Amino acid sequence: RINSDRLWDSIMEMAKIGPGIAGGNNRQTVTDEDGEGRHLFKRWCEAAGLEMGLDEMGTMFARREGTDPSLPPVYVGSHLDTQPTGGKYDGVLGVLGGLEVVRSLNDLGIKTKHPIVVTNWTNEEGARFAPAMMASGVFAGVLDQADVYQHVDKDGKKFGEELERIGWKGTEKVGDRKIHAFFELHIEQGPILEDEGIDIGVVTHGQGLKWLQVTLTGKEAHTGSTPMPKRRNAGLGMARVIELVHEIAMDYQPDAVGAVGHMQAYPNSRNIIAGRTVFTIDIRSPEKEVLDAMDGRIREGIDTICDALDIKYEIEQVGHFDPVTFDKDCVKAIRDAAERLGYSHRNIVSGAGHDACWINRVAPTAMVMCPCVDGLSHNEAEEITKEWAAAGADVLFHAVVETAGI
Amino acid sequence: RINSDRLWDSIMEMAKIGPGIAGGNNRQTVTDEDGEGRHLFKRWCEAAGLEMGLDEMGTMFARREGTDPSLPPVYVGSHLDTQPTGGKYDGVLGVLGGLEVVRSLNDLGIKTKHPIVVTNWTNEEGARFAPAMMASGVFAGVLDQADVYQHVDKDGKKFGEELERIGWKGTEKVGDRKIHAFFELHIEQGPILEDEGIDIGVVTHGQGLKWLQVTLTGKEAHTGSTPMPKRRNAGLGMARVIELVHEIAMDYQPDAVGAVGHMQAYPNSRNIIAGRTVFTIDIRSPEKEVLDAMDGRIREGIDTICDALDIKYEIEQVGHFDPVTFDKDCVKAIRDAAERLGYSHRNIVSGAGHDACWINRVAPTAMVMCPCVDGLSHNEAEEITKEWAAAGADVLFHAVVETAGI
Ligand SMILES: NC(=O)NCCC(=O)O
Ligand SMILES: NC(=O)NCCC(=O)O
Repeated sequence: RINSDRLWDSIMEMAKIGPGIAGGNNRQTVTDEDGEGRHLFKRWCEAAGLEMGLDEMGTMFARREGTDPSLPPVYVGSHLDTQPTGGKYDGVLGVLGGLEVVRSLNDLGIKTKHPIVVTNWTNEEGARFAPAMMASGVFAGVLDQADVYQHVDKDGKKFGEELERIGWKGTEKVGDRKIHAFFELHIEQGPILEDEGIDIGVVTHGQGLKWLQVTLTGKEAHTGSTPMPKRRNAGLGMARVIELVHEIAMDYQPDAVGAVGHMQAYPNSRNIIAGRTVFTIDIRSPEKEVLDAMDGRIREGIDTICDALDIKYEIEQVGHFDPVTFDKDCVKAIRDAAERLGYSHRNIVSGAGHDACWINRVAPTAMVMCPCVDGLSHNEAEEITKEWAAAGADVLFHAVVETAGI
Repeated sequence: RINSDRLWDSIMEMAKIGPGIAGGNNRQTVTDEDGEGRHLFKRWCEAAGLEMGLDEMGTMFARREGTDPSLPPVYVGSHLDTQPTGGKYDGVLGVLGGLEVVRSLNDLGIKTKHPIVVTNWTNEEGARFAPAMMASGVFAGVLDQADVYQHVDKDGKKFGEELERIGWKGTEKVGDRKIHAFFELHIEQGPILEDEGIDIGVVTHGQGLKWLQVTLTGKEAHTGSTPMPKRRNAGLGMARVIELVHEIAMDYQPDAVGAVGHMQAYPNSRNIIAGRTVFTIDIRSPEKEVLDAMDGRIREGIDTICDALDIKYEIEQVGHFDPVTFDKDCVKAIRDAAERLGYSHRNIVSGAGHDACWINRVAPTAMVMCPCVDGLSHNEAEEITKEWAAAGADVLFHAVVETAGI
C-alpha cells in the first residue's frame, strides 16, 4: 500500500500554487503559476531519484530506471493544469499518484523490470487554449503541433509563445517514445461512485466529444429606438442555440450530455443589440452514432434559428474525439488490483475526456477512478477524502507494478 | 441659417478623438479620450467668447452673456461621450449644434436677451457606468450624486474617482442653475424620418425605460461528467430569460421594445456549466402601464424559469425613467422654426433616452431630431448627411433665438 499521508500532503502543497478565490485553484496551462507547479513537481521527482525529460509540447517525463532499461517503460500520470475556477484534485491526483507509486517503490526497495515514467501532460483542460488534452493529442498524432502552437487565448496570446515564455518548452520531439502501457488515476467528476458507495471505478470506456465554436453575426443597433421587426439580434440567436443544445441533449440522455459554458456578446453594452456573439457548444456521448446525430441536429437547428432572425453563422469544430474503448489487459490489471486489495469496484464510462483517451490510440491504456463529493468538478469546491485518494493510488500502484514486472 | 460646413468640420474634428475600429468612435465617459474631447470643446467655446462652468458631475456649461444677464439662460446641448462601438453623431451633433448656434450668433452680431449656455452632460450613454443620462439625472434631482460616484465599471473602477482622475470634476454644486428652457438636437436613432423622407422630427414624447440587472446563480460543474438531471445551469437560465424578454416585447410592439445587450457567464469556460450569469434587461414603452406590465411579466417569468432549473436569482433595477411629455411651448418653438425654414417635419416619439428627458422635469424642454441612415445608431456605421445635420441645427438655432429673445 502507498503512503496516504505523503500523497495527501503533496496534493495540499501543490494546491498552494495558483490558489483560487474559493478554496480551489486557478493554475491554467502555461501561465506563471503552471511554471511554478512544474518546478515543484520537478524538485520532488529529482528527490525521488527520477530523471526528467521534457518534450516540445512541454510534457514532463520523470523516469525511474528498470532492471532492463531496454524495455519500453510503463507510463503513469495525468496533468497539473487546472480550470480558471478548478479543484485541487482534477489531474493533480493522477500526477502525484504516479509520483507516490515511485516513492513507495523506493521505500520498499522494489526494482521493476520495465522502467516507470511519471508524466505531466501539458494543457489537458483546454480552458485557456482549445482543444483539451492538447499535448497528449499531439503525442498520439491526432493534433498537429505547428497548428496548436498558433492557438490563441482570450487575450490573443499564442500557446507556443506562452510555453516558451514560461521556460518549459523542451527539445525532445513529441511522440518519440515507446510506451509499454499507460495508467491514469483520476477523480470521477460525476456522482456514480459516491452515490453507490463504491471505492474504485474501473474505466472501460470514455465518452466521445465535439466542441463547436459558433459565431453569429447580426447588426449592432440601439435597444430603444430600433423597431422590433428591424432587429438582427445575435444575442437572441445565441439564447436560442443554447436552448436547442439543451433540448437535443435531453432527448438523448442518459446516453448524451450537452451544454454551452463559454459565451460572449459584442459589444456587450446594455443599450446595444448584440451585433455578434461567439460561444462554444460541448456535446458528448459514449456512442459515436449519437454524437453524430446530435451534431447534425444542432447544425440544422442553427440554420433554422439564424434564418428566422436574419443573422449569419459560422461553425468551427475546435475539439473532437471519438468514444474510447480502453485496453482489456490494462483494464483487467486495474480490476485485479482492486479485487486483490479488497476495494469495492465497478465498471464505469468516463464522462470527461482524459489524456488516457488519446494515449489509448498509441499504447495499451486504462484508467482508475475514485469518487468525488457530490460528483462535483470544474468547481473550486471539488472535494475528495484522503481515503478515496489512497484507495485509488493503491490500485494504481498494484496495476503499474504488475504491468512493469518485478 | 447656420454655417453647415463649419458644423460638419467640427463634428469630423471631434471624431478623431477616441476613434473606433470601424469608422466610428470609442470615447466612453470619463476615459482619457473623453478628457481630450472635453479640452477640444473647451478651446472652441473660448474661441467663441464663451465662459466655461464645470459642476461636480463634470458637466460643462459654456455661457454666452445676454443683454439682460439677470435673466435665466436658455440651455442647448447634449453629450460628447459615446458607446464602446458608437457613432460620430449620437450626442456630438447636439453639443456642436449648440456651439454652432452661438458661432452663428457671433457671425451675425446678434445679442439675445437671455444668456445662452451650451452644455455637455457627463455620461449620457450609460455604457461604462449605469445608468444612462447620469449627470442630467443628478441635475434634475432624480439620481443621488454620492450614490452614482460609487457606481463601478466592468473593471471595478468608480465613476467619481475616474471623473477626478481625468481632471474634469468641477466645484459647482449640481442642479444649482435656473434654466429658462432647454433644447437638444439629436439624431433619430430610428428609421421613421428617413423612411418617410422627412427633414425634422418634432419630439413630443419620450419612451419610458427600465434596466433590470439580473444575476442567476446555479452551480459550476463539469459539462461532460455531470448527468443532465443534476445540472443547475445558469447559462441555460440566461438563455431562457433572453427569449422571454423578446417574446414579451413582441406581444406589446410597436408600443414597446425589449432586449438583452449585456450578458456575462462565469467562469466562461468551454467545459464548465456556468455557475453564475449576470445580464441586463432593457425594456421601453411610451406608455407607463405597458412598461409596468412588462416588468411584472418578466419578474414572474424569471421566477418560473429559475424554479424549473433549480437556480437562484436577484434582480436589481439599475436604470429607470417614466415616459416623458415635452413642454408644449418649447415643442411649438421647434415646430414653428421648421415651418418658417420650409423643412418638412412630423411629430415623433423618442425611442432612446436623452438628457432632455431628465431636464424636462425641472425646466421647459424639447428636442429636435434629424434622420440617420437606416435608423442605425449604437453602431460605428451610424451615418447622417451634412444636409440633415444642417437642417437640424437651423431649426435648433431658430428655436433657441426665438426663446432667448432679441
Ligand atoms: N478531465 C477533464 O476535466 N478534462 C478536461 C476535458 C474535458 O472537458 O473533458
Ligand atoms: N440617445 C441614447 O442613445 N441614449 C442612451 C440612453 C439610452 O439607452 O436610451
